[in-house]
Amino acid sequence: MPPEPSKPRPHLSVQLHSPFWSRYQQLVRETVLPYQYEILNDRVPGVGLTGAIRNFRIAAGLETGEFTGMPFQDSDVAKWLEAVGHALKTKRDPELERMADDVIDLVVAAQQPDGYLNTYFTIQEPGKRFTNLMDCHELYCAGHMMEAAVSYYEATGKRKLLDAMCRFADLIADTFGPGEGQIHGYDGHQEIELALVKLYGVTGEKRYLDLARYFLDARGTEPNFFLEEWERRGRKSFWWPWMKEPDLAYHQAHKPVREQDVAVGHAVRAMYMYTAMADVARLTGDETLARACERLWEDVTRRQMYIIGAVGSTHQGEAFTFDYDLPNETAYAETCASVGLIFFAKRMLELAPRSEYADVMERALYNTVIGSMAQDGKHYCYVNPLEVWPRANEENPDRRHVRPTRQAWFGCACCPPNVARLLMSLGDYVYSWHEAHRTLYVHLHIGSSVEWDLDGSRAQVALASSLPWRGEMSLRMSVSHGPRRFAIAVRIPGWCAGKPSVRVNGQPLARSEVCMENGYAVIEREFANGDEVALEFPMEARWVVGHPELRAVSGMVAIERGPLVYCVEEADHGPNLAALSVDLGAPIAEVPCRIAGVDAVALECDAYRRDDAAFRDGALYQPATEEARREHKVRLRAIPYFLWGNRGQGEMRVWLRWR
Amino acid sequence: MPPEPSKPRPHLSVQLHSPFWSRYQQLVRETVLPYQYEILNDRVPGVGLTGAIRNFRIAAGLETGEFTGMPFQDSDVAKWLEAVGHALKTKRDPELERMADDVIDLVVAAQQPDGYLNTYFTIQEPGKRFTNLMDCHELYCAGHMMEAAVSYYEATGKRKLLDAMCRFADLIADTFGPGEGQIHGYDGHQEIELALVKLYGVTGEKRYLDLARYFLDARGTEPNFFLEEWERRGRKSFWWPWMKEPDLAYHQAHKPVREQDVAVGHAVRAMYMYTAMADVARLTGDETLARACERLWEDVTRRQMYIIGAVGSTHQGEAFTFDYDLPNETAYAETCASVGLIFFAKRMLELAPRSEYADVMERALYNTVIGSMAQDGKHYCYVNPLEVWPRANEENPDRRHVRPTRQAWFGCACCPPNVARLLMSLGDYVYSWHEAHRTLYVHLHIGSSVEWDLDGSRAQVALASSLPWRGEMSLRMSVSHGPRRFAIAVRIPGWCAGKPSVRVNGQPLARSEVCMENGYAVIEREFANGDEVALEFPMEARWVVGHPELRAVSGMVAIERGPLVYCVEEADHGPNLAALSVDLGAPIAEVPCRIAGVDAVALECDAYRRDDAAFRDGALYQPATEEARREHKVRLRAIPYFLWGNRGQGEMRVWLRWR
Repeated sequence: MPPEPSKPRPHLSVQLHSPFWSRYQQLVRETVLPYQYEILNDRVPGVGLTGAIRNFRIAAGLETGEFTGMPFQDSDVAKWLEAVGHALKTKRDPELERMADDVIDLVVAAQQPDGYLNTYFTIQEPGKRFTNLMDCHELYCAGHMMEAAVSYYEATGKRKLLDAMCRFADLIADTFGPGEGQIHGYDGHQEIELALVKLYGVTGEKRYLDLARYFLDARGTEPNFFLEEWERRGRKSFWWPWMKEPDLAYHQAHKPVREQDVAVGHAVRAMYMYTAMADVARLTGDETLARACERLWEDVTRRQMYIIGAVGSTHQGEAFTFDYDLPNETAYAETCASVGLIFFAKRMLELAPRSEYADVMERALYNTVIGSMAQDGKHYCYVNPLEVWPRANEENPDRRHVRPTRQAWFGCACCPPNVARLLMSLGDYVYSWHEAHRTLYVHLHIGSSVEWDLDGSRAQVALASSLPWRGEMSLRMSVSHGPRRFAIAVRIPGWCAGKPSVRVNGQPLARSEVCMENGYAVIEREFANGDEVALEFPMEARWVVGHPELRAVSGMVAIERGPLVYCVEEADHGPNLAALSVDLGAPIAEVPCRIAGVDAVALECDAYRRDDAAFRDGALYQPATEEARREHKVRLRAIPYFLWGNRGQGEMRVWLRWR
Repeated sequence: MPPEPSKPRPHLSVQLHSPFWSRYQQLVRETVLPYQYEILNDRVPGVGLTGAIRNFRIAAGLETGEFTGMPFQDSDVAKWLEAVGHALKTKRDPELERMADDVIDLVVAAQQPDGYLNTYFTIQEPGKRFTNLMDCHELYCAGHMMEAAVSYYEATGKRKLLDAMCRFADLIADTFGPGEGQIHGYDGHQEIELALVKLYGVTGEKRYLDLARYFLDARGTEPNFFLEEWERRGRKSFWWPWMKEPDLAYHQAHKPVREQDVAVGHAVRAMYMYTAMADVARLTGDETLARACERLWEDVTRRQMYIIGAVGSTHQGEAFTFDYDLPNETAYAETCASVGLIFFAKRMLELAPRSEYADVMERALYNTVIGSMAQDGKHYCYVNPLEVWPRANEENPDRRHVRPTRQAWFGCACCPPNVARLLMSLGDYVYSWHEAHRTLYVHLHIGSSVEWDLDGSRAQVALASSLPWRGEMSLRMSVSHGPRRFAIAVRIPGWCAGKPSVRVNGQPLARSEVCMENGYAVIEREFANGDEVALEFPMEARWVVGHPELRAVSGMVAIERGPLVYCVEEADHGPNLAALSVDLGAPIAEVPCRIAGVDAVALECDAYRRDDAAFRDGALYQPATEEARREHKVRLRAIPYFLWGNRGQGEMRVWLRWR
């Protein structure tokens, strides 16, 4: 057996130890990744042919045949590989590693002699590389494979994929740029920008950071690259034969990125781009870029975000529409966009820790992202519904993109492996260490241990937490080389209604001893081995209203408790949830429940339901007499949103009318 | 000058004399018809090329060139001609008649030697006639030209177009049918069925009625004609290249018409078909067909109709979706479908007079149909909005089919001439004479005079009415040959809240003297010349709620007064109408107003509006504290729906939240 390659030691190393989250990581490791591997290999009956692995075999000359799937089919394999890398960082798994090594051998075998790698263009359109950046996701696929390479190298120390992707990155850097003979362009689906930053992170190769910045700088400038490319291509769209001219806003290429104020276009593209913008702003100290990130953040999260931490108001273009337009029935709310929102939030936290970034990250994570995957790990949402009416989702074409149950797979399968890679790298989102302030920021209260370099030795903090069900958490310090002065900054969640209590070694801290900075409680002191900081956040169920400009939820309320948004389901109320209305004064009871194997807290209160029977003659419209408006009392039962759809197909709603 | 041709004397002849409606007829006669004529001749700047008249010139060999527009472009000319015919019945107009004669000369010149007439197939696809019935509207266009021929013949006695269309009908009767060598098929867009019934009406030619029945009988039977035709055509859709197989329900060809219970598919096709079904059921005494009409009527009007008397819940397929699915923001509610609903309602009244049919007819007429045309006669709705938010209608593609203002014309221009022909023939919808019961039914309370054959002489009744603004109406009898015994049955509108008063020659009738039958007050007696029957319907503004199964309007109310549905507009309230809520107990004041030259009654009451300012930090979601829900008092002002959109572009809503 060859010696283990030496892995790079990350500055901050996190392992989850959380009853809630370790279960998810175990599910991904033991079920999701093997299941997705079988699908990528076309061995799952009932799931349509993906061709994902086979495309690499063909491109490598190991098999003959046609290309299968979307031009970006490679990216599913890349995201799977990246997730495996993250999984191997959390736990050794020789079987999983062997699978990944096999796939990497295949990927590298499919690489062209000059470093180029893309099975679609290699098999289907040889000689056409880099001629349809706008539509064909070449650099997007490259970016995902770079992320996979970085992840796998960090996990295993193996450089095979990393070296291959550096070669590809070098080719791309030679090909694209402002120089003569270079393509002054960028990809139709942003992704490579953030991947190049990661590649720079492990290699220290500044050329990759410069290329990421070039792609951002060039985007949306005049003359517009996509319009020029479109002309060169004979004005043809790969996807939409009827297209008359490119929709630049769809690709966020309608104006230079630094001038963008409002989130527009395809939501996932936007999120990936904003993530890279925040990365580059931080690494290059680019204040203009940082300000653009702040403006876009504010627009996304204060004017265009669903309560479940999802974005994308229309399925047409999988896109943002405009401020305060958040229709429930026709929402798009794609899983990948929420994953991207988490990326963006974390990068904003690296730029400047403010609790609102982590509040959004938490909202997206605990609601959309985990809600998108069934507890069996084998069924997924692409679109995350705010409202399900199964018959409408089947029979009204305007709502057909919202599936009333989670699906085994998708023709465009971007979301399932995206969730896998996010969950397996969740540790990366819990903390930040800011060297200048000697502060360890705790963004998410997720049970875990974190280890980092402190004055030349390793410090460790163990976080224990009862979230999302109760609001207690504690941090225990390990500074084995003697006491160290540093600060711990714990985010006080936006949902925390009352004053949180803070104790150090069991002693309550006075208010003056806790400094609040940007939503974080900062406890700075000389920490000795075994010191414990404990916080308790009052966690009460609460009714929530939308901003008055959110026309779609006027007169409606949602229920939240801690980081969880709740929903009501037909399973508890029978059909027609729209007939329910709630009395905001009714006390809300917390009731233990078990759904799909998860022990959870349901919420119950008195509510009302309209009487159908009183409606005269079955007429559609009637004078609003007392009788026609008659309601009777019912018991409302709300369950955590992420557990929706586990008790048979039926109606579901997040927003309820208040009386 | 040649002698006037002698016109056929209609059994029931109606002339409107109504301040409200005569204005509309004048508008159509003096503005709409000349405007549409100019458009059909491509002489209106700013309106896209229609080619409608030019296609006939090319088909007639008077000009060379390509076909322009939709395959059903001929039908716009036909509907215009039909409307001119109706106009000439209301008033002689030599200039209009000359225009029509010119067009008819052209139409007949474009007819092929064997009687065939269709400019699309003649110019664009010679030799392909009757090979794509499903998609190409050949018999639909034929039907519209037959309706035009009947209308013009009734108006002028001129037979040129009528004879031409009989020749075409004969060709169609030879071509289609159950016999050997005939096409066992029917059109993709129903229309010819009802047209053939009209042709039968003026010619007495039973073959035309039989053909109408054949088309209905054959539809949806096995083996399915559209599927067979689709195979013969090489599985190609004219409209949707990506179509995998025909959507039979879209064409109401998914099952035999007698077995249909639920309105499905394209709403206009459905309405035209149901109309013909009711015609044929009445003329042939077909009880099974009549029962199917009743079931479909009930489904449409009790489960799938918008409050404005509109149908079509989705723009995809311009179609019905399913029972109780009536979303407001994305409604289709096409003008033509409401015109068709009025056709259907009138035919149901001919089958069996029941006031619910006329209630729906009135609802569609006073709200959707007249609301679809601007008061200048030159701007139209294709889709009639239940809710306008101009920015969403521009920037959210799911709502883009709902135009926030009326348009000058459409690429598919079915609606404007449909409204013109309906308004000019409105007299046909006011009365029915049922010979067996010697009863004159008054369905709509529209100022008019009606004349009909009674015991060998002409009787006349003059109706005066103050609708829709006040609830008074009267009927004055002219029986110049001496008193006659017959009955007058006046519909008591569904909106009439209290007991209507009935007076004969000024004397109130006791309750026992008024017999109520199916929603009509029947006054039977020997009527002498000058006798007057007067009714007064209590007309009060009222809040209306939707059936509890109508999820889209849960917790909401609309305002109606008499036959008019009301709406609220940004012009009176500023933006964000969703922030308004109403208190059903507040007294409603009736306030005179003048909008777009129409003297109307506005409704006002106290209501509430949510405060934006109180919403903390611009956050999107907040705990539902008193502060976050704070409202202030405002004065609500509602205007008749048909007058929406006359005071600048802005938001509009029919449904409002109640508190």
